[in-house]
Amino acid sequence: MFLFYSNQVDEGMILLEAEEARHCAQVLRKKPGDQIEVVDGLGNWYIGTLTSVEKRQCLVKIDETRSDIHQRPFHLHMAVAPTKNINRLEWFLEKATEFGVDEISLLLCQNSERQKVRTDRLERILIAAMKQSLKAKLPVLHEPLAFAKFMERNQQGQLCIAHCREEEKPHLQHMLQAGQDVCILIGPEGDFTEQEIHLAKANNYKPVSLGESRLRTETAAIAACHIANLINT
Amino acid sequence: MFLFYSNQVDEGMILLEAEEARHCAQVLRKKPGDQIEVVDGLGNWYIGTLTSVEKRQCLVKIDETRSDIHQRPFHLHMAVAPTKNINRLEWFLEKATEFGVDEISLLLCQNSERQKVRTDRLERILIAAMKQSLKAKLPVLHEPLAFAKFMERNQQGQLCIAHCREEEKPHLQHMLQAGQDVCILIGPEGDFTEQEIHLAKANNYKPVSLGESRLRTETAAIAACHIANLINT
Repeated sequence: MFLFYSNQVDEGMILLEAEEARHCAQVLRKKPGDQIEVVDGLGNWYIGTLTSVEKRQCLVKIDETRSDIHQRPFHLHMAVAPTKNINRLEWFLEKATEFGVDEISLLLCQNSERQKVRTDRLERILIAAMKQSLKAKLPVLHEPLAFAKFMERNQQGQLCIAHCREEEKPHLQHMLQAGQDVCILIGPEGDFTEQEIHLAKANNYKPVSLGESRLRTETAAIAACHIANLINT
Repeated sequence: MFLFYSNQVDEGMILLEAEEARHCAQVLRKKPGDQIEVVDGLGNWYIGTLTSVEKRQCLVKIDETRSDIHQRPFHLHMAVAPTKNINRLEWFLEKATEFGVDEISLLLCQNSERQKVRTDRLERILIAAMKQSLKAKLPVLHEPLAFAKFMERNQQGQLCIAHCREEEKPHLQHMLQAGQDVCILIGPEGDFTEQEIHLAKANNYKPVSLGESRLRTETAAIAACHIANLINT
């Protein structure tokens, strides 16, 4: 089953544009009168009937709206330092969307080798992953932000920082409670600095371990995201 | 810290060849007398002293051998259908090695879109991931095998098949016991067929769920591998 995406929903009608319209008209060869399913990325899943089909834009009349798709009992915010190799960050975004994540921040850390990220491209990866995993809600992706600035935003819920420095740390899976919001910080290839860890602790982030193995940044991020979802399964 | 790999260890000496020798001699510019660390992929971690350094081969005299690195309390065998896009299988191999896996089989299923795989290239990915995650043991990778043939090999321990068809299935995390061997089957993009699921059940594989989300093949495989490791953490 193919799921379409549109953020243009108004007065009982949905507008498909660009790639979504082209796929509908030229790849799937849909015709007016055909029924399709569309999500708006805000949690709404529509079943509608095509009223006009062109390769640049298609119009869909909404027959049914479902707003209860995969509702999650908690809010998961992953704050991750972008990897030097952008493919690794993109891979994380796809996998996190499949497992389930609500909000993603990109942390610019003292040891970050990458300071610039094109979020428009990352946005397209999130949309594709949302559709592929049949979800109606698109994770919110924030523009890159300096670690210290991120600390100024008071996050709510269970706050964790996964760092690799020597310290007594409980495993994340023994730390999280189900049904409570979570925000997890994942550092860059060179790890968080002592200064960043100190600042995070001062802001009530608890150091956690993700196990004995040395994990790459994106692997640590996907592990943490997966654990938060497992706790709530 | 950089970890070297060699499967040529004999009478207290280790031979580094090809890429390992080149990296030692030309990238890290090591000299005779320098100490390096080497793993053999069989669970042995060596600390040794370079006695000769050339870009095609280096010799290392073993000073110390450790065989107790990251010993795992169970044996994990992941049997996965290769993905149509080989990169997705390669991602799985890298991540599974980081999390910890002992044995990997490639299943050729009725719905498999890919029937051929070059395991030599996959082997290199496993070696790189083993070194990067500081492990001494290399996962054993088997040549692709037809599903029915794999069923003829009597696997031991907790046998699970993760399929997506409608059926009452416990979540894998509620199914596995710590300290016991595990073998998990992951199907291709088109899922296992009813016939394959029936055959697996006849061979004592228990159907399991990996959660509500629709996961890609490699994501399901990484999730299952991660869960088996979490249960044993």
